[in-house]
Amino acid sequence: MSDLRVTYRLTSPEPEALARALCIEQTIEFPFDLVTDRFVQDHVVARLEALEPAGPGQALATLAFEPHVVGAELPQLLNVVYGNASLLPGVRVEALELPRELLSVFRGPRFGVAGLRRLVDAPTRPLLCSALKPLGLPLDDLADMAHRYALGGLDFVKDDHGLADQPFGRYQARVAACADAIRRANAEVGGHCRYVPNVSAPADQIVARARFARDAGAGGLMLAPGLVGFDTLRAVADDAALDLPVFLHPAFLGSFVTRATEGLAPGVLFGTLARLAGADASIFPHAGGRFSFSPADCAAVAAACAAPLGGLAPALPAPAGGMRLDRVGELGDFYGTDVLFLIGGDLHRHGDLVETCRRFRALVQGRRDDSFA
Amino acid sequence: MSDLRVTYRLTSPEPEALARALCIEQTIEFPFDLVTDRFVQDHVVARLEALEPAGPGQALATLAFEPHVVGAELPQLLNVVYGNASLLPGVRVEALELPRELLSVFRGPRFGVAGLRRLVDAPTRPLLCSALKPLGLPLDDLADMAHRYALGGLDFVKDDHGLADQPFGRYQARVAACADAIRRANAEVGGHCRYVPNVSAPADQIVARARFARDAGAGGLMLAPGLVGFDTLRAVADDAALDLPVFLHPAFLGSFVTRATEGLAPGVLFGTLARLAGADASIFPHAGGRFSFSPADCAAVAAACAAPLGGLAPALPAPAGGMRLDRVGELGDFYGTDVLFLIGGDLHRHGDLVETCRRFRALVQGRRDDSFA
Repeated sequence: MSDLRVTYRLTSPEPEALARALCIEQTIEFPFDLVTDRFVQDHVVARLEALEPAGPGQALATLAFEPHVVGAELPQLLNVVYGNASLLPGVRVEALELPRELLSVFRGPRFGVAGLRRLVDAPTRPLLCSALKPLGLPLDDLADMAHRYALGGLDFVKDDHGLADQPFGRYQARVAACADAIRRANAEVGGHCRYVPNVSAPADQIVARARFARDAGAGGLMLAPGLVGFDTLRAVADDAALDLPVFLHPAFLGSFVTRATEGLAPGVLFGTLARLAGADASIFPHAGGRFSFSPADCAAVAAACAAPLGGLAPALPAPAGGMRLDRVGELGDFYGTDVLFLIGGDLHRHGDLVETCRRFRALVQGRRDDSFA
Repeated sequence: MSDLRVTYRLTSPEPEALARALCIEQTIEFPFDLVTDRFVQDHVVARLEALEPAGPGQALATLAFEPHVVGAELPQLLNVVYGNASLLPGVRVEALELPRELLSVFRGPRFGVAGLRRLVDAPTRPLLCSALKPLGLPLDDLADMAHRYALGGLDFVKDDHGLADQPFGRYQARVAACADAIRRANAEVGGHCRYVPNVSAPADQIVARARFARDAGAGGLMLAPGLVGFDTLRAVADDAALDLPVFLHPAFLGSFVTRATEGLAPGVLFGTLARLAGADASIFPHAGGRFSFSPADCAAVAAACAAPLGGLAPALPAPAGGMRLDRVGELGDFYGTDVLFLIGGDLHRHGDLVETCRRFRALVQGRRDDSFA
């Protein structure tokens, strides 16, 4: 039976002592010298499996956890990987290696890359998405925007993640109107555009909002696990009665990824954990936009979205955050074709919105798998 | 109508540009020059209300948000305060000022400090807690430990936060056995000890576990919002049918508080947000234990747990993380009496556990409000 392996980057003058402390901290959180139970000593406390220097003042420590320490629950997996460790300075999760026993617990993306492609009838090219914004725009204008996005050939139209259930912008009215607008546009042009409302709602309303969205004809759901919890996303993705693809939004997750000595490696967070939670598309900030990801971070996310992970489907990386039409070529060179391009404000800078969306679509139309670098 | 005010510490060579960008980023996330709607311009985009230097390379920026941007939902409050901003380097939330309109949305702690004191019949002294650990201990041993803690006069016995529903340690069997052990001990010594099981469970099982705990006679519930989401804790705390105090555990929240230039000030996270979410007790790492909090951080948490916050009850700060009996005097000097002392492993270092708990209790018995520094 193989173990869960977590590789931590330790920034510490005493990496071995810290690594050994983590074996305790992430499992029994109890003085080892007071443990008399052999089962706990031998099968619950993690083992330090490898420790190697990794640059000045840093080391990489690999800890092995028997899978029964996690059981079959995502919150406890997060806890074992980085629960108390998150409170220690100089401890960052660099890599996760999940044994089949744990991977089999998680369904993963219900649709994945192939499923999303099927849903929008786009077997090979990059997929296209934009957002309904700005927050506060009258309902008719939002619905009109959704209509134009769909007329222009976008594959997905998501709510901006700040669109919740505000007094000036109610959830149900928005979802009904925008789903209807996209349905009409699809009928007009024979399109397959799907509306993805934001259901990062109060815990006791998420299922109801998701069902309302499905009944209104939404084509996906967006959740920000930083706001609602990773396992909440997992529960929505796993809900067979919903049967909708799920987009992960990165709001409130940034503190895990804004520095190199603590937190979680971007590929672990937006790739591996996103897929374990069942995200079909994982939105993250592309390098060179408003946010702080490096090209290496972005490449790591894309790689983790696609890497073998038991039987779990790959997720579609969705670089976002200040993207522009004039960067689509560069983005295509960087990500290849298995990518969801998310451009928001910039689509509104170039005159007629429908025409701009068509240009966006034309920019990726010719791309095939052979465009991979 | 007054505004939600968020004060950010900006570490940036261009703090004003960053502050103005945040006014957009945290609301409409759309190019302001493309906004034609007057309502959006005037009532949705945040206003930069103050900007002042705060040390080398840093500034404090206060943004004012009209409360309707949040609506009445905790996830959207988190999003407005720090959603996308979490992805920007050099942005930290230092302070929150919540208008009555938003505060009235949240019930806050159902019991609070006074309620917890009533439940355990301890009107003035510091309250005492320990944890059932180590993970993996046989059920009978855990129940025996619970029994001894209660015989010794602890007020609360919580699950270690790694106790979930593992194959070697099932949730229902544990909760039933430990609740029963504590009930027996209370009957033997006329005590009021309460068992607080960990319900940081899969999203779709939390309500069922909480109900099971209540029916089994548990006296509280513990959740880690880093693992399950802040609003999940809020929903459990708000559940009148449960009617149990809620303990917040800090697992997986550390990345928000391990550095001074990003994340959330500890008082905001473990004080203000904890209370908005309804935590009656807020567990956090005390300075000088295994973790990285400074005395100033701890004082800020305790202050934010007690500070006026609309009509919301104060929460009990619960310093933890490698605490020891020989520090109780110092902790009492530091926190005064409105505090929950959480000592885990160290209680097992001093011979008979019941006697050690009695010593722990005796150490705080004489403390009264006049012991405040």
